[in-house]
Amino acid sequence: MSQNDLTDIHPTALVSPKAVLATGVRVGPFSIIHDNVNIGADTIIESHCELGVKTPLSDGSALKIGAGSKIRSHSIFYEGSSFGEKLITGHRVTVREGTSAGINLQLGTLCDVQGDCRIGDYVRFHSNVHIGRKSIIHDFVWIFPYVVLTNDPTPPSDTLLGCEIGEYAIVATMSVVLPGIKIGRRALVGAHACVGKDVPDNMIAAGVPAKIIGPTSNIKLRDGSGVSAYPWTSHFSRGYPESVVAKWKMDTESDHD
Amino acid sequence: MSQNDLTDIHPTALVSPKAVLATGVRVGPFSIIHDNVNIGADTIIESHCELGVKTPLSDGSALKIGAGSKIRSHSIFYEGSSFGEKLITGHRVTVREGTSAGINLQLGTLCDVQGDCRIGDYVRFHSNVHIGRKSIIHDFVWIFPYVVLTNDPTPPSDTLLGCEIGEYAIVATMSVVLPGIKIGRRALVGAHACVGKDVPDNMIAAGVPAKIIGPTSNIKLRDGSGVSAYPWTSHFSRGYPESVVAKWKMDTESDHD
Amino acid sequence: MSQNDLTDIHPTALVSPKAVLATGVRVGPFSIIHDNVNIGADTIIESHCELGVKTPLSDGSALKIGAGSKIRSHSIFYEGSSFGEKLITGHRVTVREGTSAGINLQLGTLCDVQGDCRIGDYVRFHSNVHIGRKSIIHDFVWIFPYVVLTNDPTPPSDTLLGCEIGEYAIVATMSVVLPGIKIGRRALVGAHACVGKDVPDNMIAAGVPAKIIGPTSNIKLRDGSGVSAYPWTSHFSRGYPESVVAKWKMDTESDHD
Repeated sequence: MSQNDLTDIHPTALVSPKAVLATGVRVGPFSIIHDNVNIGADTIIESHCELGVKTPLSDGSALKIGAGSKIRSHSIFYEGSSFGEKLITGHRVTVREGTSAGINLQLGTLCDVQGDCRIGDYVRFHSNVHIGRKSIIHDFVWIFPYVVLTNDPTPPSDTLLGCEIGEYAIVATMSVVLPGIKIGRRALVGAHACVGKDVPDNMIAAGVPAKIIGPTSNIKLRDGSGVSAYPWTSHFSRGYPESVVAKWKMDTESDHD
Repeated sequence: MSQNDLTDIHPTALVSPKAVLATGVRVGPFSIIHDNVNIGADTIIESHCELGVKTPLSDGSALKIGAGSKIRSHSIFYEGSSFGEKLITGHRVTVREGTSAGINLQLGTLCDVQGDCRIGDYVRFHSNVHIGRKSIIHDFVWIFPYVVLTNDPTPPSDTLLGCEIGEYAIVATMSVVLPGIKIGRRALVGAHACVGKDVPDNMIAAGVPAKIIGPTSNIKLRDGSGVSAYPWTSHFSRGYPESVVAKWKMDTESDHD
Repeated sequence: MSQNDLTDIHPTALVSPKAVLATGVRVGPFSIIHDNVNIGADTIIESHCELGVKTPLSDGSALKIGAGSKIRSHSIFYEGSSFGEKLITGHRVTVREGTSAGINLQLGTLCDVQGDCRIGDYVRFHSNVHIGRKSIIHDFVWIFPYVVLTNDPTPPSDTLLGCEIGEYAIVATMSVVLPGIKIGRRALVGAHACVGKDVPDNMIAAGVPAKIIGPTSNIKLRDGSGVSAYPWTSHFSRGYPESVVAKWKMDTESDHD
């Protein structure tokens, strides 16, 4: 019962004959693939998922999942969003329509991406991150558990001001970024902060309401080395390809010019 | 394998013959409907749901879902709760026993309603809202992502003091309402607040711990119009029937008398 | 189609013949039990679960679930973790590899235990608690909704400093415990706190950032009795066996010596 001879669809999965599954795609038990779905080669869809949920809010384009991706069990993706290769998700993620993401996005368990977002390459969301509609998230951003990116400055209203998170920026656990706020390149939002003003590049914001408390270069690693913890790309490279790490070295050097 | 000729039950769904499904009810793949369930006409139950979970904490009454409702995939409802017509849920909501809600409740993805709550008409919960047992939520309330309504003033204990949220009130993202607190009619709790004192009608509470920072009428829309953002019913009507919007106009005028 | 004559496996469940299920185990519809799983007698696995998810991060040991446990629907457990008897979960919990827990752990709906944790006996997590890797949680701890125990002091990095929560301690709703922090025995973290310094035994920490605001003995029950709310074991015993409650009485007396 495979989509074609080169896919591996569990007999209990329900896969629309209209869905396009490339060679090597695997679909787990009790998963549902609706019509308007295009899945790249060698992607694994685990059990209890639902891909390509129809919505009148979409522009009619397919859900596109890049090659070499892994979508863990109980995840839900709507039609009309697009992901580069090597998307990796935890369990029970929900992604609405109209979002486009670059390569190797990682979405932790329970993430909720509300749609109409622009997400760069190599972005990492840890567990249970909530990304409001119209958020813009640049390459190499890290967002930690229970962070919410908001969008409505006067809820409820019809005004949506998405947040923008700069390249390499970090937003730590349980922080809220208020509507329309920009977090600078390589900036750091501390844990449990409520950010209501833009954060400049390379600066730390912390507290409720968040204040700028200094440059990220003030923070040392806690491993006894005395090395600066930021830019994090100077010491942390787990999970990135060598070509990216080489590029980081050049970027870091140019930052110091 | 339909419950009767006028329902549409997916062949993989498991529907108890004791469950009562009105005309036009649809049940999606891999969903389970237990015995003690009563579903109104034309309601859609999507895939991977479980309705009517048995519990010794219930009074034995059925789970009642009003006509014209839509329960999105992976949602779980216990027996012994009751919902008016046009209930709309996101994915993966969990609703325990003993709750009654009016018409057109909207529950966002991942909402967790702990049971024994009273919920009015046209209430909206965004994603991942946690409603503690014995909460009372009046008509037209909005609650935003990651808000928790608590109930135990000295955890853990056997004293449960539910919160009460007044008509048209708004609780913004990531706020906690402490046990027994009352949020006034048309009041606004800002994002990331911890509310330990009652909030009067039409006032704003913000911060940790939350303080009253002025009337909601101080806040203008951010669309350049210069119009007051509150009462929100003066400019926002998406998703409400015309009869309700007409009633709002009268209410607002009487508020200004 | 049961694993053996003394188990009760729903015909739609997918149970590996390599999994070890003791007498009286029940497995609900649409659930998946992978190879490397060992389930104790009389345990109930509800619907839509996935147990024994394979991971290269595990040491190869089985997922062990103690006798008399109940795992509610839509829950996911990885291989390589071990739970004592009478584990009780809510719905949609996620538990990664490398964690060991004592008897009668209760995990609320949506809890996310990241793995490599040590959890004592009779620990209670309410809904949507996030336990970072390498956390250590002692006997009789209570953790309330939307609490996050973190572990990375300079995110992202390769340094993981787990939190440690002392016996009988309580962490209230929406609080964050920062990496490497120790919460003392019978200490209390108030709601919506961000804890960046160790909390001594029997003390209350509250606020962002959290400060020590006094001993827990200052807090009275809100039931009109005038009785101290802490130690909570002096008045609350719901859900614990008599032998445990008897032991508490002795512990409390020795605390007062």
